[in-house]
Amino acid sequence: MKKLNEKRSAKVGMPPGSYVYVGQKRVEQVKISAIDYDQQQFNTAVLNSIDETEIYRSRETISWINIDGLHDTSILEKIGLQYEINPLTIEDILNTHQRPKIEIFDHYILIILKMLNYKNNSLQTEQVSMILGKNFLLTFQETEGDLFDPVRARIKNSMGRIRKSGADYLAYALMDVIVDNYFIVIESIGEEIENLEDKVLKKPTDDLVEKIHFLKRKILYLRRSVYPLRESITTLQQSQPNLVKKSTRQYIRDLYEHTIQIIDAIESTRDIVTSLLDLYMSSMSIKMNEVMKVLTIIATIFIPLSFLAGVYGMNFDTGISPFNMPELEYRYGYLLFWFLTFLVAAGFMLFFKKKKWI
Amino acid sequence: MKKLNEKRSAKVGMPPGSYVYVGQKRVEQVKISAIDYDQQQFNTAVLNSIDETEIYRSRETISWINIDGLHDTSILEKIGLQYEINPLTIEDILNTHQRPKIEIFDHYILIILKMLNYKNNSLQTEQVSMILGKNFLLTFQETEGDLFDPVRARIKNSMGRIRKSGADYLAYALMDVIVDNYFIVIESIGEEIENLEDKVLKKPTDDLVEKIHFLKRKILYLRRSVYPLRESITTLQQSQPNLVKKSTRQYIRDLYEHTIQIIDAIESTRDIVTSLLDLYMSSMSIKMNEVMKVLTIIATIFIPLSFLAGVYGMNFDTGISPFNMPELEYRYGYLLFWFLTFLVAAGFMLFFKKKKWI
Amino acid sequence: MKKLNEKRSAKVGMPPGSYVYVGQKRVEQVKISAIDYDQQQFNTAVLNSIDETEIYRSRETISWINIDGLHDTSILEKIGLQYEINPLTIEDILNTHQRPKIEIFDHYILIILKMLNYKNNSLQTEQVSMILGKNFLLTFQETEGDLFDPVRARIKNSMGRIRKSGADYLAYALMDVIVDNYFIVIESIGEEIENLEDKVLKKPTDDLVEKIHFLKRKILYLRRSVYPLRESITTLQQSQPNLVKKSTRQYIRDLYEHTIQIIDAIESTRDIVTSLLDLYMSSMSIKMNEVMKVLTIIATIFIPLSFLAGVYGMNFDTGISPFNMPELEYRYGYLLFWFLTFLVAAGFMLFFKKKKWI
Amino acid sequence: MKKLNEKRSAKVGMPPGSYVYVGQKRVEQVKISAIDYDQQQFNTAVLNSIDETEIYRSRETISWINIDGLHDTSILEKIGLQYEINPLTIEDILNTHQRPKIEIFDHYILIILKMLNYKNNSLQTEQVSMILGKNFLLTFQETEGDLFDPVRARIKNSMGRIRKSGADYLAYALMDVIVDNYFIVIESIGEEIENLEDKVLKKPTDDLVEKIHFLKRKILYLRRSVYPLRESITTLQQSQPNLVKKSTRQYIRDLYEHTIQIIDAIESTRDIVTSLLDLYMSSMSIKMNEVMKVLTIIATIFIPLSFLAGVYGMNFDTGISPFNMPELEYRYGYLLFWFLTFLVAAGFMLFFKKKKWI
Amino acid sequence: MKKLNEKRSAKVGMPPGSYVYVGQKRVEQVKISAIDYDQQQFNTAVLNSIDETEIYRSRETISWINIDGLHDTSILEKIGLQYEINPLTIEDILNTHQRPKIEIFDHYILIILKMLNYKNNSLQTEQVSMILGKNFLLTFQETEGDLFDPVRARIKNSMGRIRKSGADYLAYALMDVIVDNYFIVIESIGEEIENLEDKVLKKPTDDLVEKIHFLKRKILYLRRSVYPLRESITTLQQSQPNLVKKSTRQYIRDLYEHTIQIIDAIESTRDIVTSLLDLYMSSMSIKMNEVMKVLTIIATIFIPLSFLAGVYGMNFDTGISPFNMPELEYRYGYLLFWFLTFLVAAGFMLFFKKKKWI
Repeated sequence: MKKLNEKRSAKVGMPPGSYVYVGQKRVEQVKISAIDYDQQQFNTAVLNSIDETEIYRSRETISWINIDGLHDTSILEKIGLQYEINPLTIEDILNTHQRPKIEIFDHYILIILKMLNYKNNSLQTEQVSMILGKNFLLTFQETEGDLFDPVRARIKNSMGRIRKSGADYLAYALMDVIVDNYFIVIESIGEEIENLEDKVLKKPTDDLVEKIHFLKRKILYLRRSVYPLRESITTLQQSQPNLVKKSTRQYIRDLYEHTIQIIDAIESTRDIVTSLLDLYMSSMSIKMNEVMKVLTIIATIFIPLSFLAGVYGMNFDTGISPFNMPELEYRYGYLLFWFLTFLVAAGFMLFFKKKKWI
Repeated sequence: MKKLNEKRSAKVGMPPGSYVYVGQKRVEQVKISAIDYDQQQFNTAVLNSIDETEIYRSRETISWINIDGLHDTSILEKIGLQYEINPLTIEDILNTHQRPKIEIFDHYILIILKMLNYKNNSLQTEQVSMILGKNFLLTFQETEGDLFDPVRARIKNSMGRIRKSGADYLAYALMDVIVDNYFIVIESIGEEIENLEDKVLKKPTDDLVEKIHFLKRKILYLRRSVYPLRESITTLQQSQPNLVKKSTRQYIRDLYEHTIQIIDAIESTRDIVTSLLDLYMSSMSIKMNEVMKVLTIIATIFIPLSFLAGVYGMNFDTGISPFNMPELEYRYGYLLFWFLTFLVAAGFMLFFKKKKWI
Repeated sequence: MKKLNEKRSAKVGMPPGSYVYVGQKRVEQVKISAIDYDQQQFNTAVLNSIDETEIYRSRETISWINIDGLHDTSILEKIGLQYEINPLTIEDILNTHQRPKIEIFDHYILIILKMLNYKNNSLQTEQVSMILGKNFLLTFQETEGDLFDPVRARIKNSMGRIRKSGADYLAYALMDVIVDNYFIVIESIGEEIENLEDKVLKKPTDDLVEKIHFLKRKILYLRRSVYPLRESITTLQQSQPNLVKKSTRQYIRDLYEHTIQIIDAIESTRDIVTSLLDLYMSSMSIKMNEVMKVLTIIATIFIPLSFLAGVYGMNFDTGISPFNMPELEYRYGYLLFWFLTFLVAAGFMLFFKKKKWI
Repeated sequence: MKKLNEKRSAKVGMPPGSYVYVGQKRVEQVKISAIDYDQQQFNTAVLNSIDETEIYRSRETISWINIDGLHDTSILEKIGLQYEINPLTIEDILNTHQRPKIEIFDHYILIILKMLNYKNNSLQTEQVSMILGKNFLLTFQETEGDLFDPVRARIKNSMGRIRKSGADYLAYALMDVIVDNYFIVIESIGEEIENLEDKVLKKPTDDLVEKIHFLKRKILYLRRSVYPLRESITTLQQSQPNLVKKSTRQYIRDLYEHTIQIIDAIESTRDIVTSLLDLYMSSMSIKMNEVMKVLTIIATIFIPLSFLAGVYGMNFDTGISPFNMPELEYRYGYLLFWFLTFLVAAGFMLFFKKKKWI
Repeated sequence: MKKLNEKRSAKVGMPPGSYVYVGQKRVEQVKISAIDYDQQQFNTAVLNSIDETEIYRSRETISWINIDGLHDTSILEKIGLQYEINPLTIEDILNTHQRPKIEIFDHYILIILKMLNYKNNSLQTEQVSMILGKNFLLTFQETEGDLFDPVRARIKNSMGRIRKSGADYLAYALMDVIVDNYFIVIESIGEEIENLEDKVLKKPTDDLVEKIHFLKRKILYLRRSVYPLRESITTLQQSQPNLVKKSTRQYIRDLYEHTIQIIDAIESTRDIVTSLLDLYMSSMSIKMNEVMKVLTIIATIFIPLSFLAGVYGMNFDTGISPFNMPELEYRYGYLLFWFLTFLVAAGFMLFFKKKKWI
């Protein structure tokens, strides 16, 4: 699982504007790929250097440059110069512990999102940054991923509106893919909750609390990744940047709705997990109660009887006086003892029955 | 019960604007029925194809087209073309995992609500979508239902304002029926709570926590279905669309009041369910306490007495010395033993009495 | 106690504007009484029919018509026609499960309040509706009550400002009486809390949790009755209706302050009740602990001793070998046994003392 | 301690504007004292009647009239007439169960505060009201107090800005003294919390929960006394009354900061008290656990051993057959018994060690 | 650890504007150091008296005067006079129990922050105040610290933008260092939480609750130190003071983002600590359950068996009648006894197996 609060200490004390990648190096080689398209044409290429993107800038076509791997800060520096990006923006892209945010600059929009992945009950996260310009979109990922492949396919196959629309629609399409993916994460968490519920109700084991605890942490992490989105998308929707066309706005409104829906689901999930803990704790209490009842029933019946047996095991000298344990010498003494025993046992049984313990 | 977070994964990765019905196919055949009326006339028909609705469009009468069953997406596509509905709207109607919402477009209003049903302690949900246009109302249901029948009867029998008013009033009347139905759901939940309260107080069983847990989940689900309504109806009330006449506004204000009242009731219900869990947990503690007291009283009295009996069951050789268990040879030894026994028992009884355990 | 969520189902499915009284018939006969006054004159009358109020309308005097009992809907229908009241308003008055609210119409203001009564630890509620017009005030109660009597006396005896002021001041005076009454309810609840506190601290009984639970429910109900008032009175204060004179506004501000004070008190009360439950639960734990300690002390001391006594009650043949229970044949064997017994007991006592259990 | 919700019932049913003092009569005699000063002169006097303040009104000097004791409502009535105070204001001053508030009238400002005192772990409260006019300040206290003495000394000794500034600065100075005093109350509560923490951690006694409960109540009361201040002071700061000079505003901003700081501290204190209860409850659980462990260890070891001793105390006739208790006649039977005993005891010890119980 | 609520009582009753240092004297000697720079030149000096700063005021260069130690109030008085600082500002700097705040005056901005340090699981705090003027920055610390050294190095080595920018950028750089340091504190707390988690899950000790309690207190303290920052920085960002250049604003926006991120992290941390306590409490319950189960299993098996052994240890006179304990004289009596014993034991074992206790 991701750490509670990620290590940011690497950056502390550095002058603002220093380019430091705080994440782990997840890929060996930075991979730069480009897709260049408009309604008529479609080109795709893997680039060796960021300089090769220069040719796209002069054209009217829409170019999507995707960078996988952020550890080579020199590449980002070059991009910064070439596309006139603010150094603080570059810094934000490199700092993979950002909150999701959308910042509107004069000639571009910075979009930072968290891409989540839920595998083997563990939540993996990757920061995806986008720079949306007039007719280009730069995307930055920490590692190679296949989440964007359906969008690539849509562009290639001219599916839907994507080829007819601008870079803003492309950015929306990618955000939509990431946000839609949150639904899958929530579904997985929902399934885990249902598994836990089943276990709590059918065969509670001791590690369930631990699992509930870590589930809570995952939900908290998810929450922190999604909550800032709501506000950000509102920003995008309300401000009237020339970079986002009116026709794309309705799609962003749709995206906003999805975000709200995800936040709703997260909140419900939280409440259910809390309730699940209560359920577990009280099923523990019920079991404890049952354990105690068994002990009490057995002990309550047999302890007095043991005393009785102990009494007739005493060695008072019966020869000395008729007062010393005359019962031992009655003809039916032993039978009377068993009669008494059953009487006591039956009495307690009735008492427990009345108390509804058995 | 409905799943915690419904499966949306079917849609992930699809281009926006793809028509996919994410729900279950609940009816065999899509059923299209139409009611066409104004103050003078009233017609009702079951249509074979959506094309047959064309004739209603030209008239001045109010036409209510109801579609039961959403799995045939081609029908919705046709409606979209015929009534000039935005593809995103069609998508919203097909995606039955929507939050309730009201969206205002240029020439129509989209209203999405959840129709709830509480049967056999389980909450069933169905999404109802409405498209309110100038003089038509399209309604979309997942399955055939009878909730709208009273409204149909009112139209047929010219009861109330309904025949004198426009499509906006019809939309209001249907929303009102759905919202009023929430009161019944809350009443049912209230009754279930009272049953649980009774059980907790009179004969708590082990499955009560489970029931309380699932009741909480139902309330959470209900909450998510109703909460967004408040905001949506405000939108409808505040914006001044030409589609909703001034005379209908006061009814919408009334609807808003009902929504607030439902939300109030849901919040109270939540608090009471939480309090109910506390009640259960503490009644568990009280029972545990009682069990422990019985054990303690019995054990505390008889364990020392058993020791005493054990002492006089020892086999020290009384012949060797006068120090070895002389009690065994006293004339009244055995009587003294019983006297001592009653003394100890009475002493403990007094102690427990003082402690208020018995 | 009032039901958790009152039955509204009677109204579901009815067209809006149907006059249905959803409450219980609490009085046999609807009673209509009128008070007509200005600075000079004062008349009071019990009317047989609502038509008799017609004469008051023409005069400049202030007339207060009070209707006790709402089950005869025809009377309200007549009032609606005579005073030009919106059908929805009449419906609101009849629906006694309204949230408190204030609605401002063109020529009248609708005020709906809850009148609360706390008798024998149970909270009784009655809906009071008022229609404040230019120079008349209509009040509607479910049953005859004596809460308004002091106001009647003030009018009769020309006490305070009331005879000099308009119908708006009269409405204020009645609202003030109702709101002031909430203080008494809160005081009663406060006293009940203090009783419960006393019991929890001095002699906790098993039914306390139940009492705390129902107290919580009462507070929740009270809260729902008062909370909407705050907002409503603000509405009355902020909007500038010609029906409420400027001189009356300062009194309404005062009323607002009282409402805030009541809400504050309710919130504190809630917190204290929650804390009270904690107090009860932990006093239960303390008692449990004590029970367990007594058991543990007795059992821990006597179980090992019983074992010891058991050992010397064994029947190993001492004649066979010197290894078989030679203790039994020592001269001071029995004395040594008791010495050992006291040693063990004293040792455990010291251990418990160190643990601060005794 | 102050009652949970103070008795307001005395006032219920009275016409608004009735002068009733709802508090207790705390002083025998109402004491009226006056301080009259400007930059040059300083006069102080104890007055017999409120009429004597008349002479101050004509002068340009600043006059501070302090009234200790509110039970003589006629004095307040006179003040009301002389200084043209609204009857509702007089009523607010007499009603000592007011929330703190600041109300701005045309020619004066009403300031109502709670003066708190924390003595012997109990919170005492007194309502202080001020009427700030053009060049006068009227202050009303329930009882004589010495909290204002430092301000009196400052005026007398011409310390600080006070003699150079107007009545508004004087009002500020008094409010500042009252608000500063809250810090002392919070410090006392903080110390009580630390005492309780110490006790919980070192030697938890059974009355701690009770103490925590009453501490919570005190904090709730404190909260209700301070919270409304924030809003009120904002009112004073935002509205631009001619009664508060611009030079005084920065001091009021400072006062506002103090209020925020106190509210912060109260919230933290609440959270810590809640956490303290958790701490207590879990330290109780830990003790319980320990008690149970001791019982379990002792019982688990000795109950099986007692059974073993019991076995060899049975009286099966060894003479009849070689199968009947041959162990009793073995040469080393008794030694073997002890060997077995130590084996069983050691086995359990190892088991407990493994379980980390000992 | 810092006290819950710091002692402010020293200041109570003083006239506003009195210069009192409420903190501890942490350094022996007040140390005044100055750095004077612009793009071309760089000077650094340790000053003996505040008068020596006079020369910097006339120049166009940026001068940063740092004062370590606040106990000599005369120095601050001099600064106040020389730089025309409001007395209330000086007071705020001396009162080291301030909430963080930013106040904008005509010719300077006051910035008060908390510098936090987390050493040996204890949170140390120091108040840092800054006065940002046209071309000067005054900083006040309670003690000498090395947190600002990296900034000094950056100035000296002309690293980054710092030498090219004004005093506003310098103030930003220092605030950035302090805020960045919060990340380290949160990381440390996060590590402590993970340690505690580990301990709770692997070997829970009794002092963990105490540790969790004090961790909560630290987080509460941290929260109070950071929360007000958010609002303050917004103030700085929104108001358009001539003291903060437009080029610096984007950096302040960045700082704001960091603050939000820290607050997010604190909130998550709080939730996790609460969940951690639940985890601890339920792991306690699980252990308790286990303890009880062991006791119950052993006692339930052996108490009935002990009774059985006790029965055959009774001394009924077998000679008197054939009814008196004939079992003792059966040839296989003893073997049958053991058979019965194993039967009972096995029966209970099966029962426990079915109950899933073993």
